Amino acid sequence: MQRIGVAARAAAAELALTAPETKSRALLLAAQSVRDAGDAIQEANESDMQAGEAKGLTRALLDRLMLNDERIEAMAEGLEAVAALPDPVGRVLAQWDRPNGLKIARLAVPLGVIGIIYESRPNVTADAGGLCLKAGNAAILRGGSESFHSSTAIIQALRQGIAAAGLPEAAIQPMPSTDRALVGEMLRAAGVIDVIVPRGGRGLIERVMNESRVPVMAHLDGLCHVYVDGEADAKKARNIVFNSKMRRPGVCGAAETLLVDARAMAGMLPAILNDLITEGCEVRGDPAVCGLDPRVLPATEADWSTEYLDAIISVKIVNGVEGAIRHINGYGSHHTDSIVTENQETADRFLAGIDSAIVLHNASTQFADGGEFGMGAEIGISTGKLHARGPVGAEQLTSYKYVVRGTGQVRP
Amino acid sequence: MQRIGVAARAAAAELALTAPETKSRALLLAAQSVRDAGDAIQEANESDMQAGEAKGLTRALLDRLMLNDERIEAMAEGLEAVAALPDPVGRVLAQWDRPNGLKIARLAVPLGVIGIIYESRPNVTADAGGLCLKAGNAAILRGGSESFHSSTAIIQALRQGIAAAGLPEAAIQPMPSTDRALVGEMLRAAGVIDVIVPRGGRGLIERVMNESRVPVMAHLDGLCHVYVDGEADAKKARNIVFNSKMRRPGVCGAAETLLVDARAMAGMLPAILNDLITEGCEVRGDPAVCGLDPRVLPATEADWSTEYLDAIISVKIVNGVEGAIRHINGYGSHHTDSIVTENQETADRFLAGIDSAIVLHNASTQFADGGEFGMGAEIGISTGKLHARGPVGAEQLTSYKYVVRGTGQVRP
Repeated sequence: MQRIGVAARAAAAELALTAPETKSRALLLAAQSVRDAGDAIQEANESDMQAGEAKGLTRALLDRLMLNDERIEAMAEGLEAVAALPDPVGRVLAQWDRPNGLKIARLAVPLGVIGIIYESRPNVTADAGGLCLKAGNAAILRGGSESFHSSTAIIQALRQGIAAAGLPEAAIQPMPSTDRALVGEMLRAAGVIDVIVPRGGRGLIERVMNESRVPVMAHLDGLCHVYVDGEADAKKARNIVFNSKMRRPGVCGAAETLLVDARAMAGMLPAILNDLITEGCEVRGDPAVCGLDPRVLPATEADWSTEYLDAIISVKIVNGVEGAIRHINGYGSHHTDSIVTENQETADRFLAGIDSAIVLHNASTQFADGGEFGMGAEIGISTGKLHARGPVGAEQLTSYKYVVRGTGQVRP
Repeated sequence: MQRIGVAARAAAAELALTAPETKSRALLLAAQSVRDAGDAIQEANESDMQAGEAKGLTRALLDRLMLNDERIEAMAEGLEAVAALPDPVGRVLAQWDRPNGLKIARLAVPLGVIGIIYESRPNVTADAGGLCLKAGNAAILRGGSESFHSSTAIIQALRQGIAAAGLPEAAIQPMPSTDRALVGEMLRAAGVIDVIVPRGGRGLIERVMNESRVPVMAHLDGLCHVYVDGEADAKKARNIVFNSKMRRPGVCGAAETLLVDARAMAGMLPAILNDLITEGCEVRGDPAVCGLDPRVLPATEADWSTEYLDAIISVKIVNGVEGAIRHINGYGSHHTDSIVTENQETADRFLAGIDSAIVLHNASTQFADGGEFGMGAEIGISTGKLHARGPVGAEQLTSYKYVVRGTGQVRP
């Protein structure tokens, strides 16, 4: 850790002063290098996949782990997209003059050294490494043990591209083994690592948040809600609920609980339930919802705080927008919540009253995504309130400094 | 803690939706209430002072603890100044439209519940409580045990003002006793407290950073430097060095180490040393500096990483701006550092290369202060890179949320 940390700090110091063109060039060369290394990456992935099958990983986990030509090309294109983003470093965030003549500017600077701890999705290696580089940060990557060979091959390709642009290879470093103790070393590396970004399931993230001595950019659960108001447009409500749950039930922006205004229950809910159940979604409802459709299973108290990440949804009747706000702020994870209503005042009340990173009016919760926000790429969705909230892209991977220019001023 | 936390969360939810005028009114009423309670506050302070003297507190600590008419009036005026600041909540930080018609806005929102742990400076009670309220946050205050009676009396006055404006008294709550275990309870209150702000000496801040399960806005040492370049204006250099150290040697923005370009040693340093020593400053220098003036004591390695907070300064000869950057990034605390030079290119190199919250050109390090920056008031100077860096005022005590307005959009 000591050796990796020293190399990372030196690389970060150099990257902080690197011109935007050079960073973009390094990202483009890294993209090409990933393409060129396609066979080697797939070979490494093959060995991870075999070990994963032998270990009895679920189909979903094996699918996350698997790399093919298409996914490798997507990584390369992701790096090219990041290269094309505006450089987030050096932005003038604010500037003003003081009566004593001091000129003050708040300028965006890199965070420094970012430690990323993620599960066995090898593509995160390229996404996270690329975003860190774009923002002038050195990255220390620790992927899941099941993807170790794949990640190592990807990092090697990235480093070739970086070196070809004349930048230090230590801009992106892997942790040297899958030893779990190394995660602990990263979490204790205050002063060496400036921020830890955990990406993964609840277990990983809770461990990181509990153990870390390094500041953490928290990405917790996405327990997202759709609230259908009594004054909703019935067609919008059907579309938005169905899309929020079923477009991709396993993403963090997928809806897990549907709240329906008592006034909308009889008129709108039966069709919504039918859409979901017909498509194979399991519905767990409160007693009133169970009474509407015999295919609805009874929900338990635990359902209101469960992130299914699957084709399952819990449904509850609430009393208007105030009931929805109370439920969401009480049970939600402060990630993403949407209201469907034609009443602007009701919408404004919801948007102001819900304490979440993303609040939407008449739109699907599945828009909770840096790409959909136009931020180019994201390292995840932050549910913490410090520093970055919502999608974390290249801009959110910067800090700032104050640059003060004087002409000899001293303080009276 | 549980009871305090529940009350704080409820107050925070109400404050988040409170109109700017109401918060300002509460601050003005709190200021008046502090004035009206002047006698009671001084009486409480008297008992803290007597206990402090009996305990053998140093003169400096007793001076920090002491309240008189003037200091009470300053607290009231501080609250009025905060009332007059622009409201930081609801600011539109960014907004843009997406090709699919979604309208995205990033709006400033309060952080929520802020825990402030500070040493025995009773005035921090009013400053911190006022700034938290301005930014729509509930505050849980834990002052030093030596100032317990003073802080309690001040909090009581603040709460009277807040209640008179119709806001919940739990907007500002004290921890109920000086039991040190209560600090630990605050540090473990993740989910109840959103952020901990420690204000005080190294021991307190290191304990907080090591133990806290709640995100911390770090305020570490101010190991600040002035670098006098070979192309400095000699008069500016004398003024800036003298002011950076001697205006108030005990503040966090005071210079602790002076670095002098080898080219400026013979020409500029003797007069600078003479200014400092004549004024009673102890100078500890490297061998070359010792050779310039017999009154200079030899510096040890430890001096380069010591925050004296006193009329003591360490002085070292370096090779130009690169030598200065290496020294400062290696030994400094990333707080505030200044270069004195007439060469714009050299200045730019320093301002870009120094990894500190505040970097200055031709100005005293003692400008490191929210008031001097025009931010109205500050809760401290953050040396961390996450969230806020440099002076932490009302704006820095906010987070943001994304408000997305659609017309029925679903994600393809």
